[in-house]
Amino acid sequence: MSDFIASKEDDYSKWYLDIVQKAKLADYSPVKGCMVIMPYGYSIWSKIQSILDKKFKETGHENAYFPMLIPYSFLEREKDHIDGFSPEFAIIKDAGGESLAEPLVLRPTSETIIWNMYSKWIKSYRDLPLKINQWANVVRWEKRTRPFLRTTEFLWQEGHTAHATEEEALEETLLILDVYKRFIEDYLAIPVFCGKKSEKEKFAGAVSTYSIEALMQDKKALQAATSHYLGLNFAKAFDVKFQDKDGKMRHVFASSWGVSTRLIGALIMVHSDEKGLVLPPRIAPIEIIVIPIFKKEDEINKKILDYSDCVVDALKKAEFRVEIDKDVRSSPGFRFSSAEFKGIPIRLEVGINDVLLNSVTISRRDKDRKFKYQISLDSLISKVKVELDLMQKDLFQRALNFRILNTKEIFRSSKDSYETFKAYVNDYSGFVLSCWCGSLNCENIIKNETKATIRCIPDDFKARDLTGMTCIYCSSKAKYFVLFAKSY
Amino acid sequence: MSDFIASKEDDYSKWYLDIVQKAKLADYSPVKGCMVIMPYGYSIWSKIQSILDKKFKETGHENAYFPMLIPYSFLEREKDHIDGFSPEFAIIKDAGGESLAEPLVLRPTSETIIWNMYSKWIKSYRDLPLKINQWANVVRWEKRTRPFLRTTEFLWQEGHTAHATEEEALEETLLILDVYKRFIEDYLAIPVFCGKKSEKEKFAGAVSTYSIEALMQDKKALQAATSHYLGLNFAKAFDVKFQDKDGKMRHVFASSWGVSTRLIGALIMVHSDEKGLVLPPRIAPIEIIVIPIFKKEDEINKKILDYSDCVVDALKKAEFRVEIDKDVRSSPGFRFSSAEFKGIPIRLEVGINDVLLNSVTISRRDKDRKFKYQISLDSLISKVKVELDLMQKDLFQRALNFRILNTKEIFRSSKDSYETFKAYVNDYSGFVLSCWCGSLNCENIIKNETKATIRCIPDDFKARDLTGMTCIYCSSKAKYFVLFAKSY
Repeated sequence: MSDFIASKEDDYSKWYLDIVQKAKLADYSPVKGCMVIMPYGYSIWSKIQSILDKKFKETGHENAYFPMLIPYSFLEREKDHIDGFSPEFAIIKDAGGESLAEPLVLRPTSETIIWNMYSKWIKSYRDLPLKINQWANVVRWEKRTRPFLRTTEFLWQEGHTAHATEEEALEETLLILDVYKRFIEDYLAIPVFCGKKSEKEKFAGAVSTYSIEALMQDKKALQAATSHYLGLNFAKAFDVKFQDKDGKMRHVFASSWGVSTRLIGALIMVHSDEKGLVLPPRIAPIEIIVIPIFKKEDEINKKILDYSDCVVDALKKAEFRVEIDKDVRSSPGFRFSSAEFKGIPIRLEVGINDVLLNSVTISRRDKDRKFKYQISLDSLISKVKVELDLMQKDLFQRALNFRILNTKEIFRSSKDSYETFKAYVNDYSGFVLSCWCGSLNCENIIKNETKATIRCIPDDFKARDLTGMTCIYCSSKAKYFVLFAKSY
Repeated sequence: MSDFIASKEDDYSKWYLDIVQKAKLADYSPVKGCMVIMPYGYSIWSKIQSILDKKFKETGHENAYFPMLIPYSFLEREKDHIDGFSPEFAIIKDAGGESLAEPLVLRPTSETIIWNMYSKWIKSYRDLPLKINQWANVVRWEKRTRPFLRTTEFLWQEGHTAHATEEEALEETLLILDVYKRFIEDYLAIPVFCGKKSEKEKFAGAVSTYSIEALMQDKKALQAATSHYLGLNFAKAFDVKFQDKDGKMRHVFASSWGVSTRLIGALIMVHSDEKGLVLPPRIAPIEIIVIPIFKKEDEINKKILDYSDCVVDALKKAEFRVEIDKDVRSSPGFRFSSAEFKGIPIRLEVGINDVLLNSVTISRRDKDRKFKYQISLDSLISKVKVELDLMQKDLFQRALNFRILNTKEIFRSSKDSYETFKAYVNDYSGFVLSCWCGSLNCENIIKNETKATIRCIPDDFKARDLTGMTCIYCSSKAKYFVLFAKSY
């Protein structure tokens, strides 16, 4: 069965699409660029939602829901915003059998409609901070789409906060960046770089954008989350002022931030292999699959099934997410493959031998299929827990090792030049840490010549000394350490 | 403060809107007919979602997500469906800076796009039943809108199931009707009638529609949920066939069903009063509000606050949803009103007297503000639990009494005629149980002359004997007992 999944080496893009299909994560819809998120894919999204939603609430945010339809004129109010998004608008001019007086746009993001409401809701310093999140669908008309990574309609959450001071709004922007980082590292087991975007790469309408960048197995980077400090841009566009403690009227500072179903694309591309999806236990909708290994004799099979059901019950009672595949029509190998397609972290086989020995045979999705061992039923719960924890750590460590191996430092020196940089990016891809003077011109030339963009000014290297460092392209004085990569 | 809420008697419609505003459930948006669901309103919707979602999963359903954009031609495939919905379409003809080859419609409901996918997914009897639910936004361009009750965009869930046999599809339709009924009665404390809709009132595209009907305080009925048996209508429109066990190809039977944010409108209208919202405890985002009653002396207030915090901690530990309003700038009366606006079921006052006596003073949202009593801290948890349970039951019973009082039986007899019926509907409104011959003509005339429609053929009266009964309008032989009412 697994020969239906393309080899990563031969055709990475097909490998990705094969996994989406084989794991039943999503399907193509008849609407160009729109996908159907299938039940198994949606159950991963639900887990992402429930974990993040809890974290948002713990940090003082509330959910609300704003209209999907935004008057065109609202989007025009912030110049950078409309310039950035208008090529991707889907526009409604006709509804209810009539032409609309003003066209409506399907939200590509909700800053404008939300800040319009904030102008009604925020009057005094007592109304601040206002920290609202929304789980919603958005539409951006993309030319080239791929399931989860880039689709015309996608699901996401978007936080929109309002603050009395710049300091507080910036603090919020970075707080959420940290919430994202911890979620992506601790749950999705994806090691990430955090940092500020360049002016060129920032969100249309932001003062500054911070992003989270992960490395995929094809050594391309993927922006997994963004958090924007919006300054007064939207408060001014929508005239949102509050009366401060001193009685003076002041504009309101803003942040916005979001993650989307794109995270599922990252999950697939960081951990999966040629047998299918590999899911970190903490995000897996099903942690454990129990597979009874049937014999020819019905009587024996009844014993195996009864025993398997007991195993399932014990695991359920211990609050594991467990399922059993007791399809007698399918061979064990077929059922192993099904579980592998889906990336279920732990497989427990139950054969007649296990029934006799009061044991089960455990194996892990991230290990070779032959790597398995028997555990006694007495230690079932503890062993399963240990293996799940271990797998979570191992996946993170493996991804981190891969990233370390594929993060190269290239600085101008007696032996390295822009040519070295270009050749490396061309031959090896991955992250390249280098130095940049801060000019748009250098950034553009590098992008045009190498296809690599500045992913971020990484926090991890902030402490490093820039003295004497020069821009990898123009050799003038460097302003930043930056991470370059080709990206999704 | 409560004088800001209109009197139900004087202006029911304003009373409703005042509560929506005062409880901060929703706000008007700049887009005609679209509302913003504010955090408190959204938290009620989240509770509805989480309870129903659990029930759907317990009955074997999975969540998925289908595109919001539906090709126009899909909607045309089922004739009744397009006839029913096309006047309410919002249509996209331009996107990504280009004209689309085919216009797209914002989903008014998703039967068409989902059955298009089912034609790919369903091949064999082994693929059945397929039971999928979706939580989503939908758009229906309505002329007259009102927050929660009827809005252009609204949030809902829509279940779409596929079955091998008619019997099984019908069973599913009724199973879900029962899930809805139990949820609405047990959680929302709203007594309901269930039953089949007339041909005229059924869903466009259904073979038969079953609905759940509740009575509002203005004696108008509100359809709170619907479950449709779709027969083969969509399977035929999208050519969805499966190979049955006998090897033959057969069309697939279908059901669909949904509830929406409209339920919040029902909640408001069934229980609330002129002090604000009244929420049944089981659906209330906040079950208990603790209100410290401050004195002039800071030292005393510190004691009151510390004590109040202990009360909150104890309740949180016992997993109650509790909040504290310790705003010293506001008088107790102001804070009582705030809690009343929001419909928080239990108020616990903490005064210095309570601190000294190791007690709190408890009162219930559905009782007069003066009805309150002291309870000792030892019995806090048990008393609160008892009062919450009691309030849940009392609200249901009160609503049931109101419905009983306002459900009148009027049958043709020596003393009662169609004129009696007409006069009663005109003067008193409410539900009228009567008899109907089944003809569209009688149904239409009654609707035109009284504004009352057939809400359903109620299950509750199925066992009654129809012998000798005649249609309330035309006096020919009656086919059904039916419930008439003016409705939302």
